[in-house]
Amino acid sequence: MAPRSEDERPTLEDVAAFAGVSRSTASRALNDDAYVSARSREKVLAAARDLGYSPNQAARSLVTRRTGAIAVVLSEPEARLLDDPYRTAVMRAGYRELADVGCQMVLLFSDTREDLGRTVRFLEGGHVDGVLVFAPHRADPLPRALRLLKLPTVFGGQAADLRRGVHLVDFDNEGGARQAVTHLVESGRRRIATIAGPQDQGAPIDRLAGWRKTLVDAGIDPAGLSEEADFTLAGGAKAMAALLERVPDLDAVFVGSDMMAVGALRTLSDAGRDVPGDVAVVSFDDNAALAPAMTPPLTSVHQDPREQVHAMVSTLMRLLDGEDVAPGAQILPVSLVVRESS
Amino acid sequence: MAPRSEDERPTLEDVAAFAGVSRSTASRALNDDAYVSARSREKVLAAARDLGYSPNQAARSLVTRRTGAIAVVLSEPEARLLDDPYRTAVMRAGYRELADVGCQMVLLFSDTREDLGRTVRFLEGGHVDGVLVFAPHRADPLPRALRLLKLPTVFGGQAADLRRGVHLVDFDNEGGARQAVTHLVESGRRRIATIAGPQDQGAPIDRLAGWRKTLVDAGIDPAGLSEEADFTLAGGAKAMAALLERVPDLDAVFVGSDMMAVGALRTLSDAGRDVPGDVAVVSFDDNAALAPAMTPPLTSVHQDPREQVHAMVSTLMRLLDGEDVAPGAQILPVSLVVRESS
Repeated sequence: MAPRSEDERPTLEDVAAFAGVSRSTASRALNDDAYVSARSREKVLAAARDLGYSPNQAARSLVTRRTGAIAVVLSEPEARLLDDPYRTAVMRAGYRELADVGCQMVLLFSDTREDLGRTVRFLEGGHVDGVLVFAPHRADPLPRALRLLKLPTVFGGQAADLRRGVHLVDFDNEGGARQAVTHLVESGRRRIATIAGPQDQGAPIDRLAGWRKTLVDAGIDPAGLSEEADFTLAGGAKAMAALLERVPDLDAVFVGSDMMAVGALRTLSDAGRDVPGDVAVVSFDDNAALAPAMTPPLTSVHQDPREQVHAMVSTLMRLLDGEDVAPGAQILPVSLVVRESS
Repeated sequence: MAPRSEDERPTLEDVAAFAGVSRSTASRALNDDAYVSARSREKVLAAARDLGYSPNQAARSLVTRRTGAIAVVLSEPEARLLDDPYRTAVMRAGYRELADVGCQMVLLFSDTREDLGRTVRFLEGGHVDGVLVFAPHRADPLPRALRLLKLPTVFGGQAADLRRGVHLVDFDNEGGARQAVTHLVESGRRRIATIAGPQDQGAPIDRLAGWRKTLVDAGIDPAGLSEEADFTLAGGAKAMAALLERVPDLDAVFVGSDMMAVGALRTLSDAGRDVPGDVAVVSFDDNAALAPAMTPPLTSVHQDPREQVHAMVSTLMRLLDGEDVAPGAQILPVSLVVRESS
């Protein structure tokens, strides 16, 4: 592959020189990073304006899709990725949506610190035209590393600790939790517990917040009614046991994922609790392979990974076409599917 | 990336010119392809000998691992890939084994004809140093397309219709089936049916052959005792129903995969057949997430995808290091794990 041809457009180096700052300071300022002084930021933005530099220039220089390949990066332990039907549904959606626009999906798992170096090295090597990233952990260093690469990137859900200057497509996790818990309140449940996913990830944090706010709005005290688990079946089963021990009179549980709900159902069955007679169960994901197949079939908040990936691919294609897409979050609606478990 | 530097070694073009044939004829002859006349083959091999040309030269020119990335190509419908715990175990093994040698796994799904073009374009773009391929279908055009790319490649199982000149690592599918069926014969079963996987794939063909030969060796007529299914749970359930209908007095079934065995167990349970009292069930894969977790736990032929991928990565690393590895098949042993279902 030939090195990228240079054109007459101003470069990041030009902006930095014009503003009298280092290249990395200019990059941080243009990327709205917090680690740059207000004064430097102003100088850099003024220089960019004067020179006609656009932050999307990197994307424009890629206007022809050179490799025909788009990386889908999943930043989580590979065991959890491959055992979780929701994550595999995301991979399948990536394959289909990218095939629909004529692109080869290049799937990368990147979990450890060693992976990070390899993944960044691969991505900066010009082997893909753009990146779709699922980086669920708040402390994940990958999004920050990707920001420096000048590769058009769209995040599925939160971009770790990056708050500004990113393109992301997320579901309305808090709104979904509110729908689920409102449904329980309206059907007369009062001791509504929750099994929340890992609290270092954006989606589980938002779902827990939605549960808490709905209870408070209904005049119910949420104290002592929540347990955290790790999105696995075993974790859900264990959290359910802890809740039953602590709150023997609970009459409902909102579980933060279908997989954990399967575990919770097992614990409830072992404890002789009837679902939904004694305890109503509502979960999140509405995965086709799990929610409708359970005994009893699970009421669950429906989110369609294909819809999310479709929106991500659509934004990425606009970036690759050189469009000046404003960074920001696109929040997709979710809806409650009521079945026999509630 | 700079174009590959040329050294003083003879090229394929040199060999073709010396032999007085086209480049593609020379390539086919050196790759032991059937579509070349005996006379041309002889001329090309003589030219290669005289010039000191080695078929592994392409690998040698890659002696430094330039991208640090290895493609793992899975050539099957993405739904089957992601729903089948054996296939996801292969992906996990690929990730771990490549991480162990410091490489980034680049996972590519390539199913349709359109995919083939994109996949080949990506692989020939110099984005990876080598390729591990799982191409289960005999008619798959991918292996033949890869042969022309000069990329070090190792196959997991059969290389579609390529018979010679390939590096591959496979399990002893026929031997495993023989162990399974011998176990059934020795425990006194006589009406031993089979549910075979798709007969356009190497592993299921070999497993069916092992079943058939063992029955014949034991003096049992295999006629009418086999059904073909598609490696899915639903396919296994349906094939079991067909067998029960046709052979109501069957007393054992050898199922070509754990996933199909789960379906067969459901059908047997629905039909009121006791396992193993009425019907003994033995399967293949011994997937940790399925075989021991069934009711009753499944007797299954154990094959470890990590062992296979380890051997594939090991061969690939030798090729990348410029070693003159003779093409051929490495066949890994399998072993029967007896549990309650037989």
